[in-house]
Amino acid sequence: MTTALPATPDYDAWPIEAHLETLTFSPRLVTVRWSDGRESRYHSIWLRENAADDSTINPATRERILDLSALPGWPEVAGAEIDAAGALCVDFAPEQLRLRFHPGWLRAHDYDNAEDPEAPLATVKLWHGGPEAAPDSLDASGLLDTTPDSETEESILAPALESVLGKGMVRLRGLPTEPGSLEAIARRIGPVRPTNFGLLFDVKAKPDPDSNAYTSIALPPHTDLPTREYHPGLQMLHCLENSVSGGQAVMLDGFAVAEALRQRDPEAFDTLTRVHWCFANTARTTDYVWYSPMIRLDDRGELLEVRIADFLRGPLQANFDEVESAYAALMTLQAMLREPEFAIRFTYAPGDLVIFDNRRLLHARDAFEGSSGHRWLQGCYMERDEVRSRYRMVQRRRRERRVAAKGQQES
Amino acid sequence: MTTALPATPDYDAWPIEAHLETLTFSPRLVTVRWSDGRESRYHSIWLRENAADDSTINPATRERILDLSALPGWPEVAGAEIDAAGALCVDFAPEQLRLRFHPGWLRAHDYDNAEDPEAPLATVKLWHGGPEAAPDSLDASGLLDTTPDSETEESILAPALESVLGKGMVRLRGLPTEPGSLEAIARRIGPVRPTNFGLLFDVKAKPDPDSNAYTSIALPPHTDLPTREYHPGLQMLHCLENSVSGGQAVMLDGFAVAEALRQRDPEAFDTLTRVHWCFANTARTTDYVWYSPMIRLDDRGELLEVRIADFLRGPLQANFDEVESAYAALMTLQAMLREPEFAIRFTYAPGDLVIFDNRRLLHARDAFEGSSGHRWLQGCYMERDEVRSRYRMVQRRRRERRVAAKGQQES
Repeated sequence: MTTALPATPDYDAWPIEAHLETLTFSPRLVTVRWSDGRESRYHSIWLRENAADDSTINPATRERILDLSALPGWPEVAGAEIDAAGALCVDFAPEQLRLRFHPGWLRAHDYDNAEDPEAPLATVKLWHGGPEAAPDSLDASGLLDTTPDSETEESILAPALESVLGKGMVRLRGLPTEPGSLEAIARRIGPVRPTNFGLLFDVKAKPDPDSNAYTSIALPPHTDLPTREYHPGLQMLHCLENSVSGGQAVMLDGFAVAEALRQRDPEAFDTLTRVHWCFANTARTTDYVWYSPMIRLDDRGELLEVRIADFLRGPLQANFDEVESAYAALMTLQAMLREPEFAIRFTYAPGDLVIFDNRRLLHARDAFEGSSGHRWLQGCYMERDEVRSRYRMVQRRRRERRVAAKGQQES
Repeated sequence: MTTALPATPDYDAWPIEAHLETLTFSPRLVTVRWSDGRESRYHSIWLRENAADDSTINPATRERILDLSALPGWPEVAGAEIDAAGALCVDFAPEQLRLRFHPGWLRAHDYDNAEDPEAPLATVKLWHGGPEAAPDSLDASGLLDTTPDSETEESILAPALESVLGKGMVRLRGLPTEPGSLEAIARRIGPVRPTNFGLLFDVKAKPDPDSNAYTSIALPPHTDLPTREYHPGLQMLHCLENSVSGGQAVMLDGFAVAEALRQRDPEAFDTLTRVHWCFANTARTTDYVWYSPMIRLDDRGELLEVRIADFLRGPLQANFDEVESAYAALMTLQAMLREPEFAIRFTYAPGDLVIFDNRRLLHARDAFEGSSGHRWLQGCYMERDEVRSRYRMVQRRRRERRVAAKGQQES
């Protein structure tokens, strides 16, 4: 008699929130009832493909090796039971194969009762700014002294990642101010995405600048690198020096502005979701061009991303009859982006690191007086995937600790 | 009297294909007639925003500094003429500003007559494979000896970039086989995109593999990193050693397969454009998950990208009633991916570099016998933006040579 629970198809930990109590089956369906009364249905083909045995999953990599279309026929259930360990056991025809399923894993992947499997990892809260508003600020002074992947690193990173996932930004304080230290800081989350501006880029007034960012002029609210098919999902700006007058940082929730536009002027909103603008950066040795609406929606009409940067727009190439309405919508948006109620304003202090979602937030800065001191930020890009992966690992470690604690309790 | 042509708003070169002959205007429109009889209309606001003077463009960066919404009113045309240099001159009210437009630039951005401003840079040709098929192969043996951005570098890169843009792949031959040389090769096109697998990754059978790719088993046709929101647009695989039996490379045009599926089984095609599959890589220290259809279409119903990898699919979390039809469609696709007529097969030789579009092509490999020799590929990722930027630079340099030759002719 098997008393141990079977493996799961992945490396994750799956606490058992409820036990399997009863089941019924037909050739293409298994229906189970859990100890808390929930009923879940699983298709035979879904169970077959998601088994965790060595004919389905490469045990060394936990990646699938099964080729469904090479099976002798559509997988059907010849028998099913709940075994002594509490696992679901299914006999599959025509393969004549018995496979076992971990109840914690099964419950967590109950698509029959799932609300939204693609729900964001943290609750997304759109925000307005105004004179009283400030970014979530966290002391991160010990970050580089923690062991990577340790619980102490996690205690600093987890709330930071939650702010980025939920509000689109966080301000970490007390970090080192050595040039280049951003790379080591960023790697605590994931790999940096280099661009033609380098792995890290220096935001300061430079001779022979190849971007308005590298001057001391004001920058209007924008997303970075809108000239790319996939503009970076995440940006980090790390302050090394700041002793100038002016140069205040401005951040806006582009999604909040877009939703306000949808309410106030639905026609302008619709125009900006439809018209493809040209974003172009024709520099001396590179030539990036991409066409996209400024506001992109998903299949459900929800905001997917904003792509806004007046200084990186090339000549609009829209249908002749749409040009004037496109510009009218743009000017409505531009005026909203100047309303103080949307903006959070703050002054960078050396050791600050602002991490923000570059497909949701807009950032801007006031002009500064270069002769009065120095202003030096280092920046880099990353994908949002890295924030989500890192945050899932935090959640996994917490589940692992729950599973371990429960194991000790039961033993 | 001004006889020199005005600047353009960008760094590009704009040969003059036709001269401005006559014009008419109204407050919001300028209509011109060209020497070849074409008529083009430009809106006043479009002209105003795309001027190249110092109040509109930062001359140091060639990026826009004009804030349209800060103008005293909608830009209107108070007067217009063609000057002695052949430029379009427009007097704008209410600013009382005279601005000049370069005729070559104006003609190239004639949105009134544009067919498809977003047309691909090279003609896209879908392809089938079969036993006689072979990838475009080019001798690239001198590449690393050329000067970056030189005409000799361009003579090797230009046809390679054209193959990647048009057919989604190219095979370069005769490159060095030193480990790590891929980085220098890749940089001739643009910056590499690192991932959790590193800047370069080693495809060989490894102890304790964290991917099926790092074993000697066969890999079914797939795109890489489908577990990311933005899976890389470009992949490079560089052969350093290959003395094993087996391990043949297989490449398929995923767009050709998808179009064939659309013809043969429109319902399965539709299902695969609609159902969101879960792509997951829950490794020991990272946890990437993304939900997406396997075939994505643009607004016009044209193929945008494919995202296929059986070994990186997590548990499907679709609506209960869609699960069986989703699997039926998947199995139809899987069977097509095994049809030999779609596949190009070849054996990597040391010094080969295959560059391919990772959102269009699928790659696969046969199992190999690790004990019979060594098989070592190094790989990396890049964005398609880099191929397009590099190719636009090739086109720009050609235009510059044309402009220069014409200047010499006229002087």
